[in-house]
Parts: sequence; C-alpha cells; structure tokens
Amino acid sequence: MTEEKIKVGVLGASGYTGADLVRLLVAHPRAEITLMTGERHAGKPMGDVFPHLAGYDLPALVTVDEANWDDCDVVICGLPHGTTQEIIAGLPERLKVVDMSADFRLRDAATYAEWYGHEHRAPELQKSAVYGLTEHYRDAIKDARVVACPGCYPTAALILLIPLVGTGLIQADDIVIDAKSGATGAGRSPKEATLFCEVAEGIHPYGVASHRHAPEIEQELSVAAGRDLLVNFTPHLMPMNRGELLTTYVRLADGKTADDLRKALVERYDDEPFVRVVPEGVAPATRHVRGSNHVLLGVYADRLPGRAILISTLDNLVKGSSGQAVQNMNLMFGLPETMGLEQAPLFP
Amino acid sequence: MTEEKIKVGVLGASGYTGADLVRLLVAHPRAEITLMTGERHAGKPMGDVFPHLAGYDLPALVTVDEANWDDCDVVICGLPHGTTQEIIAGLPERLKVVDMSADFRLRDAATYAEWYGHEHRAPELQKSAVYGLTEHYRDAIKDARVVACPGCYPTAALILLIPLVGTGLIQADDIVIDAKSGATGAGRSPKEATLFCEVAEGIHPYGVASHRHAPEIEQELSVAAGRDLLVNFTPHLMPMNRGELLTTYVRLADGKTADDLRKALVERYDDEPFVRVVPEGVAPATRHVRGSNHVLLGVYADRLPGRAILISTLDNLVKGSSGQAVQNMNLMFGLPETMGLEQAPLFP
Amino acid sequence: MTEEKIKVGVLGASGYTGADLVRLLVAHPRAEITLMTGERHAGKPMGDVFPHLAGYDLPALVTVDEANWDDCDVVICGLPHGTTQEIIAGLPERLKVVDMSADFRLRDAATYAEWYGHEHRAPELQKSAVYGLTEHYRDAIKDARVVACPGCYPTAALILLIPLVGTGLIQADDIVIDAKSGATGAGRSPKEATLFCEVAEGIHPYGVASHRHAPEIEQELSVAAGRDLLVNFTPHLMPMNRGELLTTYVRLADGKTADDLRKALVERYDDEPFVRVVPEGVAPATRHVRGSNHVLLGVYADRLPGRAILISTLDNLVKGSSGQAVQNMNLMFGLPETMGLEQAPLFP
Amino acid sequence: MTEEKIKVGVLGASGYTGADLVRLLVAHPRAEITLMTGERHAGKPMGDVFPHLAGYDLPALVTVDEANWDDCDVVICGLPHGTTQEIIAGLPERLKVVDMSADFRLRDAATYAEWYGHEHRAPELQKSAVYGLTEHYRDAIKDARVVACPGCYPTAALILLIPLVGTGLIQADDIVIDAKSGATGAGRSPKEATLFCEVAEGIHPYGVASHRHAPEIEQELSVAAGRDLLVNFTPHLMPMNRGELLTTYVRLADGKTADDLRKALVERYDDEPFVRVVPEGVAPATRHVRGSNHVLLGVYADRLPGRAILISTLDNLVKGSSGQAVQNMNLMFGLPETMGLEQAPLFP
Repeated sequence: MTEEKIKVGVLGASGYTGADLVRLLVAHPRAEITLMTGERHAGKPMGDVFPHLAGYDLPALVTVDEANWDDCDVVICGLPHGTTQEIIAGLPERLKVVDMSADFRLRDAATYAEWYGHEHRAPELQKSAVYGLTEHYRDAIKDARVVACPGCYPTAALILLIPLVGTGLIQADDIVIDAKSGATGAGRSPKEATLFCEVAEGIHPYGVASHRHAPEIEQELSVAAGRDLLVNFTPHLMPMNRGELLTTYVRLADGKTADDLRKALVERYDDEPFVRVVPEGVAPATRHVRGSNHVLLGVYADRLPGRAILISTLDNLVKGSSGQAVQNMNLMFGLPETMGLEQAPLFP
Repeated sequence: MTEEKIKVGVLGASGYTGADLVRLLVAHPRAEITLMTGERHAGKPMGDVFPHLAGYDLPALVTVDEANWDDCDVVICGLPHGTTQEIIAGLPERLKVVDMSADFRLRDAATYAEWYGHEHRAPELQKSAVYGLTEHYRDAIKDARVVACPGCYPTAALILLIPLVGTGLIQADDIVIDAKSGATGAGRSPKEATLFCEVAEGIHPYGVASHRHAPEIEQELSVAAGRDLLVNFTPHLMPMNRGELLTTYVRLADGKTADDLRKALVERYDDEPFVRVVPEGVAPATRHVRGSNHVLLGVYADRLPGRAILISTLDNLVKGSSGQAVQNMNLMFGLPETMGLEQAPLFP
Repeated sequence: MTEEKIKVGVLGASGYTGADLVRLLVAHPRAEITLMTGERHAGKPMGDVFPHLAGYDLPALVTVDEANWDDCDVVICGLPHGTTQEIIAGLPERLKVVDMSADFRLRDAATYAEWYGHEHRAPELQKSAVYGLTEHYRDAIKDARVVACPGCYPTAALILLIPLVGTGLIQADDIVIDAKSGATGAGRSPKEATLFCEVAEGIHPYGVASHRHAPEIEQELSVAAGRDLLVNFTPHLMPMNRGELLTTYVRLADGKTADDLRKALVERYDDEPFVRVVPEGVAPATRHVRGSNHVLLGVYADRLPGRAILISTLDNLVKGSSGQAVQNMNLMFGLPETMGLEQAPLFP
Repeated sequence: MTEEKIKVGVLGASGYTGADLVRLLVAHPRAEITLMTGERHAGKPMGDVFPHLAGYDLPALVTVDEANWDDCDVVICGLPHGTTQEIIAGLPERLKVVDMSADFRLRDAATYAEWYGHEHRAPELQKSAVYGLTEHYRDAIKDARVVACPGCYPTAALILLIPLVGTGLIQADDIVIDAKSGATGAGRSPKEATLFCEVAEGIHPYGVASHRHAPEIEQELSVAAGRDLLVNFTPHLMPMNRGELLTTYVRLADGKTADDLRKALVERYDDEPFVRVVPEGVAPATRHVRGSNHVLLGVYADRLPGRAILISTLDNLVKGSSGQAVQNMNLMFGLPETMGLEQAPLFP
C-alpha cells in the first residue's frame, strides 16, 4: 500500500526560493504540491513563470485570497518579508507552517521593530514560533506548529559558530564574519543593482554594518553564550547564481588551538547527514555544495597568534532556504529527515 | 525483499563526465558503483579528486589494469577517445558496456580513420555497437552488449532533425547548425584555451568546418534520409559550465510551414519522458535544462520565405553524456527508463 | 597655442551607452563635455550614477528641458528610441547631431512606422540624416548635419557583408546571421529578463525573426545589391557584459570560393584603421575587441560545398555605438578619424 | 621637434601582466617597445600569442638570451618569480629596471629564503632595489636603478593601511585582511585550478595563512609602525578576470572613530591622481576601477564598538602590476607620473 502523501501549499512560488522549493518537492516521495500562490502571476501555469518546471504536473498559481486551505496539510511560505505574518496569523489552526521569510526569526518584538521598521503584526505567533535551524532545534521543530527557517547567512554562520561559542572555545566578543553571496539571494524582482552587468565581473560589499541577518546571528549566538553578543557581519555580492561562503575570523580562548576547534566541530556534526568538516588543508568551495542541502566547514590556524580562520559554505537556496524548509517539514511529519534531499551537488 | 542492485563500473571517473555519472548513480535506486578507474588519480578516494563527492561511500580510484571485473555487471566508460576501444575489446564477454567516448559512434571504419587519425582497434565491436540515441534506437539498445552513446552535439541535433529529415518536411541538403556550448565539453585537462580568463566574458567559434561531431550527425541523418548527406556544423565556446544550445537553420520542403515542423515534433515526442517541444513564442534556454536529462525543442517561422529556425537545448553532461548513459543502462537491464533521472532542472 | 576644443553635449548620459561615450570623450584631446542630460537622474553628479566616473570633472546631469544649447557645438544622443526625433527636431540649426538611437536609421517612413509602431515625428530630418556606418558613408558623414549611427548588430553585419554583396561574390538571397550578444545591449533599465540570474550560466535566442535590426541590415544590403533583400537575423543573449559575435552563413556565387571572399575583404579594408581580417584558421573572439573600436572579420570554407562561414565581432558599446559616434564626430569636425579611439582592447 | 621616446624592453611579454603592459605602452606618448621576450613563444609575432594585439606594430618575441639590450633604455620584467633575479643581475648597468615579479620586494634575505624556498641569487640588488609603491616611495623611485613593484594585494593593502598604521589611528596588531581576486592573478599557465569550470559560479579561499603577499604586507606595515607586525591575510579566488577587493577589519586606537580614519585617508591622498576615498555610504566595487590605474578606498563604522571596516579595490593587472610599473617608469625618466595612464575605467 502506498503511504499517503503530505499535501503542501507553497506560498510565494514565483520567486527563486519558491521555484527551488518546487524543484525539491516534485522529487519528494511523500509530498505533493496541492496549492501554489503567486500574486503577480495568479492564473498562470507555473511553466509560464519558470519554464524549467513546465513539464511537471503542478497546480496553477492563485492569489493568497483564492487559496483553498482545505487542500493542505502544511504551507511553506516564501513570501516577502513583512507580508507573511498577517497571512499566517489568519490560517486555520490545524495547518502546520514552515516559514522561509524573516517574519518569525527574531523572538524579541523590539528588535524586530527596530530592524524591520514596523511593529510585528502577529506577536503571539512570533513568540511561539520555533527557530528552524534543524541541527540545533530538532526536538522543538518536531512539535512546532510554526517553524521560522533561518536566513541563509545565519544558517551558515550559526552551524559553524554555535558549537564554538557554546563550549567557550573562542572569544565570543571578537567575531568577524566576511560573507560572499551569489545573486539569487537578492530575489527575482527587477532592480538595477542586480542586473547582469552590475554583478558580473566584479564584487562589492553591501549592507555593511546594517544587514538584517546580523541581529539574527546575534540572537542565537547570545543564546549559545548565555549573554548578549554583537558580531561583525559584512556581506559582499559576487557573480554567481547560488551559494554563499563565509570566512569567519575568531580569537581563540586561552590555550586553545585551531585544531581544538576542528575537533569540536567534527565531534558535534559527526552524525549529521548534511554537515561535514573538510579535512585539514582542503578549501571548502561554494561549487561543492551547489544544488544540495550540504554545509561544509573548514578550520585553519591563523598566521596571527591566538586566532583562527573558519569557513562555512552552503547553497543559499537549499540549506539556506528551501532545503532546510523541507528538512523541517520532514521532522514535523515524522519522516526521515533526509527524504527528498538526497541530491548530490551539481559540479561544475 | 530489496531487489538486487546492478553493479556498475565507472571507467574514467576523474573527468567532468565521470563525476556527473557518479552524481546520477549515487541517487539511482537500483545501481551501485563497485569500481571506479582514474589513471592519474589511482589510489585516491574520489573525494580528493571531486570534493563535492567526498561525503559519499564510493570505492577508491584504481587503474584500469587493477580493475576487478568480477565486481561489475556493466561498465560505463568515460575514457578519452581512442583509448576506449582496446580496453573494451579486452573485457569479459558477459559484461555489458555503455560507452560515452566517441570510439564506437561511427559505424564506417574509413570515416572513423579519417576523423580520428588511426585505424580502429576493435573493428568487430565497432560494427556491432548500437548507437545510443535512446529515443531512436530504443529496441536495439535493449538487446545490445555495447552501446555507443552519441556525442552531446549530435544528441541535440539528431533529436531535432531525424523526425524532420525522415518525413521529408525539410530539405536535407541545406541544414546549418550553429552550436553554442559551455566549457565542461572541453574536459578537465588543463589547457590554455579553457582557462577561466580565456572563456569568461566572451565567445568565439572553434573547430569550424572540422569538428568531429559533424560526421556523426551526418551518419544518422543519412540513415533518416536514405541517402548521403552533409551538414554545416559550427560550434562556439561560451562562458557557462553546462549546457548547449543549437540554432538550426533549415529550408522547408515545398508547401510546408514552420507549423508543420512543430506538429511533427510534438507528435513524435509526445510520449517521450525527456523531450519537450516548447509552445510557440517561447525561447528554450540552456538554463531550463541544467542538471537534468531534458531536451527542449523550439520552432520558429523565419523572416526569409520558405525557411524555419529551430532550437534544441540540453545539458551536455546529462542528456549529452552521463544521463543518456544511465537511460541506456536502464533499458539494457529492463528497468524503467527514467529511473535515477527524475531530477528537475536546477534553475538558476 | 592649444587648439580650441569641440564642446559636446551628451544627451542620455545615464545609460551604458552614454557612460561609455563619456569614457571615450574624457580622453579625447580635442573634445570637452559641456552638457549632460539624464531625465531620471537630473541634478545629480555623474559620479552618483556611475561611480567609475566620479573622479572626472564633468557637468552635473540636467533634464533636456534645462539644457543650455549655447554651450554645445555638437550633441551626441543616447536617448531611448522614439524620444530622440522630437528633441533633435527642436535643436538650433547650427548644432551638429550624432544620434546613437534608432530614430534616423531607417530612411523609409513606412518601414519605420511598421517596425517602431508610430509615424515618424521628424520626417524631414529622417530623409536628410546620413547613415553613420563610417567605413561606407565617410564622405557624406563629413558634410552631414545629422548622422544616424547604425545599430550594433547592423554595424557588425554590414561591414562584413556590404563588400561581398556589392561585388556579387555571394548569393544575396540566402544570408543567415546568427548573432550572440552581451547584456549591455539590453540597457540599464531594470527588467527581469536581464537580471544576473536570468543571463549568467546560459544562453537563449530572443527576438527571433522579429528584431528591429533586421530591416536596418536589409536596407543597407539592398542598397549594395541594387534590389530589395531580406535576411535571416537571429540574436541570442549570452553571459557577458560587452561584445557581440555574428556567425554568418552564406552561399557563394558560382565559381567563387571562401578564399575569394577573404581577399575581397582584405582588399576593401586594408587601409581602414579599425577593421581587420584575421588570418586563415584564426578565430575572432569578442574578447579581442573589448573596449576598443575594432572590428574583426574571419572567413572559413564550409563543409557544405558552395558555402562559406563568416565571422564578425565588435564591442557593441564602442564600434557598435559610442566609438562609432566619436569616429563620426571626428569626421564632421575635420579631425583625424582615430582621435580618442586609440585604446587597445582590454584582454582579458 | 618631437621628443625622443624611451625605448622599453618587455621581459615576459606572453603572460597576462605582460600583455597588459603592452596595452598601456602602445598608447604611451613617450614610450616605444623595442624588445619583447617570451621563452615558450620566441619567434612568434605577439599577435599569435595575444590576437587582440595583432594590429599593433610590435617586435617579434625573442628569448632572453637573444635579447639585444642596446635597444633599450629600460626593461620592465614580468618574468616568473625566481627567474628574474639572475637575469637582472646580468643586465648592463646603464639599463634601468622596473620589476613586476616578487624577486626584489622583500628586503630581508632570510625572509625571502623562507617564503620562496631558495637563497636569493642577487642579494646586492635585493638590498638596493626600491620598493615601488609609488605613493609612498616616490622620491626614492625617481633615483632608483631597480624598482621592485609591489604585489597586487600588497598595493591594495598598503595604500589603505600605511597612513592608518603610521599615524597610530588603528591598533596595528589586530589587522584582518579578507581579499577577493579575479583569475588573471593566477597567470596564463594551464592549471586545473584555473580552468573556467573550476572558477566560474563559485568562490573559495586559497593560500590561507600561507600566501607570499603576507610577509610583503608585513614588511611595509612594520616600517610604518616602527616595529615588527604580523597580519592576517586570507585571499579568495572568484569568477572575474580582473580586479581585487580587500575588506580589512581593524580595531581603532582608543578614542578614534571610523570618521577619523576616513579623514586621514582623504587628507593623505587628496593630491594623488590615482587614489580616491569614496564618500560615506558608497561601496567601492572592482568594476569601478577595471582597466584603470585607480585605487578606491572606503571606510565604514563597524557594528562592533571600537572597530572599523575598510575597503580597498584596484585592477590587479594595472595598479596592481603593469600600471604601477609604467607609473614608476614615468618617475624614473622625469615624465609626468600619469602619462599613458589616463584611461577611464571600463564599465561595465
């Protein structure tokens, strides 16, 4: 007997994140897409919006207002930040929610208001939502109704740093994160800044000292440290579609070495299916995780005494967004966590 | 009871084609890789050669001389052209062979010698090998011992043109194929011509009127036409990793229209799982097939009366090589043809 | 005594074409920019719109309405198609005009209306404007008041084909032009189709059998042939900033060879400073002309008897637009044609 | 009367650096290339090695052994590291030398031996060579016989940091330099690591804590600080041809602010023709300096109290190599420093 499939509604299917979620779900043996929304493209088949998906049997796009929630067991939301909270607050209580927006990531209402420019519109949900960093909130995710998937940068930063901050191996007040990201992170809305000619053949920093992923990283590292922390987080836009690589510069705790850091990470993630510490001397590269749910971590001794250089890399659309969403959905429905996420990276 | 797995030997696993074959096979539910050869890298784990595969349980690379054929039901060869024929001629008869090199594609010994610069070293096998263009040689492939997978360009050209030449819808003596390819087609051996700085931010033709895929296309179109044909085939190297797009310019048979061509292609490929004719007015793009075994075809009326413009596109490493190899292996072992090839394209 | 400088007004300075014109003019020993317009950015210094020009002493952007024409000897227009004609019609008669838009390229009012969707708004000027393909209209350009610079594709097509059509070396009814272009050709206005992720790592055709450069090519080839001609013109968008490469497929006149074509081109362009026929066997590449006013031509015998394959390549922003504009301006003011255009290509 | 031209010999003309030097020299009003060497390509015209230079009147390539030094007033060397020192030691004393290799950058013989793996072969020259960071060694360069042009990364790091370390505005023991570079920096010799498919669509660190530019940066910052310093220097390879961007993380001296740093840099470089501090809030980008001799500097307050984020960017082939060489040659021959270096950046 075939087991019943989970009926999944995809909210905001017409962005890059939504499309990648659909890519993963059409290959998921226990999920079926029963609803897809896209405000600007409502009424169109998905193949008109994303021709690479034209050959798949998918429901046509509808507006959120037209959505039939009876058809869904869970909704996965890739809506723009700010619009998600009211929509989710209005959903039937029986629906599980995996949110890929930033709306429920920050637990503190004041911090949310400061960084997003308005009071939160669903403060109760904000408090009860579980932070969806799977490797660190697994048990809570299993029982959650609303899971707030971390941002792509926070996922890459936190998988690396939580074990190191939590064990006191590094000095938590001196963390510098230099991030490099591909252009899918900027979304599919037309903007001069993400035209081909403004991104190809070059690199530049953006959101210096003001990127919204900084408070998210700080929130979780503060939990790990048991006290309030700030971090430097400096992202750069570079000419690639997918992927991000974070080079993190840290000061070691007294008497600790880079090797201690490596061992702690290996031990922490040894049983994790998607996280791997590369051997000494190997350089993690974004192209080694492209299209997969993998995270690679690397550790190097610094030339400056008492410091270490750390690398983490992932595909921002997969482990940084849709892949982690599916991973969390699997947990919420009692499925094997890796189901539908077995694809090997696409290299080159 | 789990069904037994097909034991697959991958010869020449250290090239881009080999790596992509491994990507597909690790996700194939009925195949397992039991042997991998790589002359220059023998003794190394695959993860040293392709770090994106480091997390998979794979045999270490060995030389062809060290290979234990008892461990294999089939070998899939991604060896350099010219070296394959002797190795295959020396394999135990019971082993099935799917060859991705050019060694067995040309059935005529003289044509082979002319284009490859030496007499064929396994002429009997050359004669008996089946041309592995799945959609057109399906029945013969099922019963073949040696299948010679077509080149990437011929696959894209022939899927488009065989139905049109075979039905007399176009004038077969006036076919111009302008091809654009990514750099994986040039392989992983270091060459000045494929350095990043020689490929990025530019395009140039290569192998003009002298590319080895021309006689291969001609061989199969001649079969379709029932007489000897020549074609123009002009490839260009452009800055992308994967994918190729062929723009083919044809003269219509008297009284025929571009619409007749479209209908013939739709009808021919309606039941094929991997071939799709895009709707009128849509432009097939390489990025719509990336990482998948899909082929997209497009048909346009030309501004010049009596002519049409045709597009075909595929991922040269998948349908143009490893994917078609797996497709053929499935047929040879009585498996569903699409098994292990269900991945949706990776966009962007 | 220093010679007086030509005072140049740049209309539409905030697009890629305008910026490249400014790049050329700031290094021009006999030109000085006295006026720059940019409707959306009026009031800003150029360095706010194009940071790479922030270090140059340039007038701030104004609207066309605010322009002080007394300050100009010549205006070079990079305005959007359709808006140019009325503006130019209203300029003081003493001002010379070099137009880089499409507004004055087509001499036939009906053809213009058909392809651009409205009646021409300055039909008298349309008739008197000189087509600015420098190498073929040099004498007329010297005496012209309004010069209409050709489109980028027509420049590359016509420099190649006019000598061959004009001498009857090729059959003028059977010309197929497969063009590949970088993304600057699509301009700087934000559009989904030219986002980085929609252009990188891929290629696709656009404007198939409907691109506005086709009638322009036909107009000039018809002049060369002495009768009305149509051509196939099929452009593709590919991942590079600058440059275009045209692969043109032609049928030879009876008894003629590819070598005859090469000789005719070498002879025709031997004295031209910006046009060069590459030696036999060499492949012209867009990256060999990047940033320069150069055009490279290549000729190959086809595998199909009686046919030849021709290549032409140029930088669409330079010889395809701003460079040719400066070249024409030089002629109109009696300066050496190459002045300010001596930069060698930037490779890689 | 035309002034006499400086006769320049280009040693190692067949690499990317050599080609870019030729690009600059052919447009230099007071220089003429009289000699070009290229060991592997000796006997060929430059246009065979670099087709974009085929149209220029240049001497054919010869080996160093065949070079006629009588024809030169100065040699500019772009030879591989390690081979330069013996060749330069053997040159006639009257020849001035501008060296773009690493051979004479490190003044300390032991440091050289440690990082380059062999004793220096011209230790006297090593001592007397002047470090060619033009903006900081201008007077010494004017009188030097041998000028050792800095590495590309050190140029970008030192122009930024010398004024800040020298004035005590930052804590010199806590400098972290995260560098991102295009692929020309890796040279034109075929290597797997710089194939298109290994660089495109991705980023990875290399030479972590072991790059040879670290001791060079340290040498000069130690001079500025008046004591021995170490720095963190972590380069990354990314998909672009030209350009590098350094993001430098520093700790401010007590009581100092990011604004103090900005003011110090503005003041220091106000009169420099090639160095510019961008306004607050603007992000320097590699594409804003492409093809030019410009350096852009940016300063940002950090989110971490007491820290700042600094950006410096340049074109590694121009200000990072050939452009600075020409700038130094100009000084050594009493010419205006900017001669031949006036090209505006090529954007996009």
